[in-house]
Amino acid sequence: MTDYPEAIAITEEGPREGFQIERGPIPSAEKVRLVDALSTTGLTAIQVCSFVAPKLVPGWADAEAVAAGFAPRPGIAYSALWFNEAGFDRARAFADRLTLRGGLSMVASEAFMQKNLNRDRAKGLAAARRQTALHLAAGIPVSRIGVMAAFGCNFSGDVPVAAVLEAVQDGLDIAAEAGTRITGLSLADTMGWASPAQVERLVGAVRARWPELALRLHLHDTRGLGIANAHAALRLGVAQFDSTVGGLGGCPFAGEDGAPGNIATEELVLLCEELGIATGVDLDALIEVGHLAERIIGRRLPSAALRGGSLRRLRQRAAAG
Amino acid sequence: MTDYPEAIAITEEGPREGFQIERGPIPSAEKVRLVDALSTTGLTAIQVCSFVAPKLVPGWADAEAVAAGFAPRPGIAYSALWFNEAGFDRARAFADRLTLRGGLSMVASEAFMQKNLNRDRAKGLAAARRQTALHLAAGIPVSRIGVMAAFGCNFSGDVPVAAVLEAVQDGLDIAAEAGTRITGLSLADTMGWASPAQVERLVGAVRARWPELALRLHLHDTRGLGIANAHAALRLGVAQFDSTVGGLGGCPFAGEDGAPGNIATEELVLLCEELGIATGVDLDALIEVGHLAERIIGRRLPSAALRGGSLRRLRQRAAAG
Repeated sequence: MTDYPEAIAITEEGPREGFQIERGPIPSAEKVRLVDALSTTGLTAIQVCSFVAPKLVPGWADAEAVAAGFAPRPGIAYSALWFNEAGFDRARAFADRLTLRGGLSMVASEAFMQKNLNRDRAKGLAAARRQTALHLAAGIPVSRIGVMAAFGCNFSGDVPVAAVLEAVQDGLDIAAEAGTRITGLSLADTMGWASPAQVERLVGAVRARWPELALRLHLHDTRGLGIANAHAALRLGVAQFDSTVGGLGGCPFAGEDGAPGNIATEELVLLCEELGIATGVDLDALIEVGHLAERIIGRRLPSAALRGGSLRRLRQRAAAG
Repeated sequence: MTDYPEAIAITEEGPREGFQIERGPIPSAEKVRLVDALSTTGLTAIQVCSFVAPKLVPGWADAEAVAAGFAPRPGIAYSALWFNEAGFDRARAFADRLTLRGGLSMVASEAFMQKNLNRDRAKGLAAARRQTALHLAAGIPVSRIGVMAAFGCNFSGDVPVAAVLEAVQDGLDIAAEAGTRITGLSLADTMGWASPAQVERLVGAVRARWPELALRLHLHDTRGLGIANAHAALRLGVAQFDSTVGGLGGCPFAGEDGAPGNIATEELVLLCEELGIATGVDLDALIEVGHLAERIIGRRLPSAALRGGSLRRLRQRAAAG
């Protein structure tokens, strides 16, 4: 039995994920070019840049130039990422072009939080409280909880389902204290530990406890299971996914340089097309944009669909004889 | 509901698939080195070479040197590929080292047979009859049918399930005429058209008609769905798979040079480990052999698991603190 959704909503994170990790420097105009090209493919949500400290992420020192430079298309929500008040202030300068949304960022592995953010659980909760207050005070809605390291952690190993549930509950408690209602939950496989069985377990447990929360998965393809994991989630009716064109991005926690990052948008779209699930995306157009991304960063991206091409085109050719 | 097998049997086809498509020339000693390294990983079936016309496949002009050069290990079945009497005669010279088996090679798309083999259906059936007679006369068992292009064809488009069933029936008829019993059926996604839904449809239809045949899948990862397809088959209890270390090989029919070929053995093994399905393979050892394969061919292979590494090693490290 499957419970495939009729359609899914994809958030394209290629520009933000990709340019934060590529060695570069990549001209701002090229980053803008990629965002504008993505805007023509039928995608309705694109994360364009990251307002982070240039010292930590030199690839996004030009976030302002990109946020100011792309040509917004009606019907597309352009978003950005930030982690603190300084980043939020930078993002707010583009409130006319960006869809600003606050989120409660939780981590299911304290070991990861320590290594990556130098925070223990108490400090993490305090930071989430501060961020929530900051966003709400500025009139920015806070309606989603995101949980990093929800499937496993390179520092602590397997992440128990109970740890994810606890992180979600922490987020819900903070939201309740602040008087904001959470409607969405995003589970991130930050270090590429998920398997289809784990997706089934975690989605099942979260749904049983909070059936009212809309689930989103942020999957990585670090070890080649990303699309199988997406398929396992689709079977359960999960209808929101993050992905990156060409598989842009990477995994700084992987054993080896050049490990794949997010699942590739065109592989996700191809999977959905073959399952009869609508994405709104023109796969052939998206594959062209994937090739553009490769020219911009100067190397091949990991997406197999970029090499193999769409099946629609082959079907048309076969039908034409 | 899932019907995962307790264990699967993998046939490693990396040497045969890889060296037939790499530009080379690759020294025979390096090919032997790869076969010998694979023999230490726990794999129990390795296809070592292809006895094909050197003019057509220059990469296997040295099939004899490889067949004579590797060091056979007890418990491992080493096999080879051939397509005609000349190839069979070459393979028979190594009957003491290779496990020789005849198969009935069928094609589910006549358009593919025409383009790839320059044969129509009648000629294809005649060739299968000749091969069967040839093998049986030499005392070589013929117990398996293989169907190429079982999921789709770049020349004719989607391949109907009925066309696959017809190809299998043709093979069974030829076997019956020749007085040999078929016990296994291999379905090949030669051009990378399979989706999880198509795997479910085809496996279901074949099983309903011939529940006595043991199913094997030969999956390609041309468009990134290969491991999701393997997972769909595992859910249905399919317990035999072909794959190649690192994803060695390629797809001469893909839209672009460098398209992935077979699913990568280490991704399949990793998937099985996470699902609790035994493979007998030491994943960390196999990943080392994948890196050896990359050094031999002089480029990176498409397997994500080669970049991301095994989870077992990370679990051990996390447990050690």
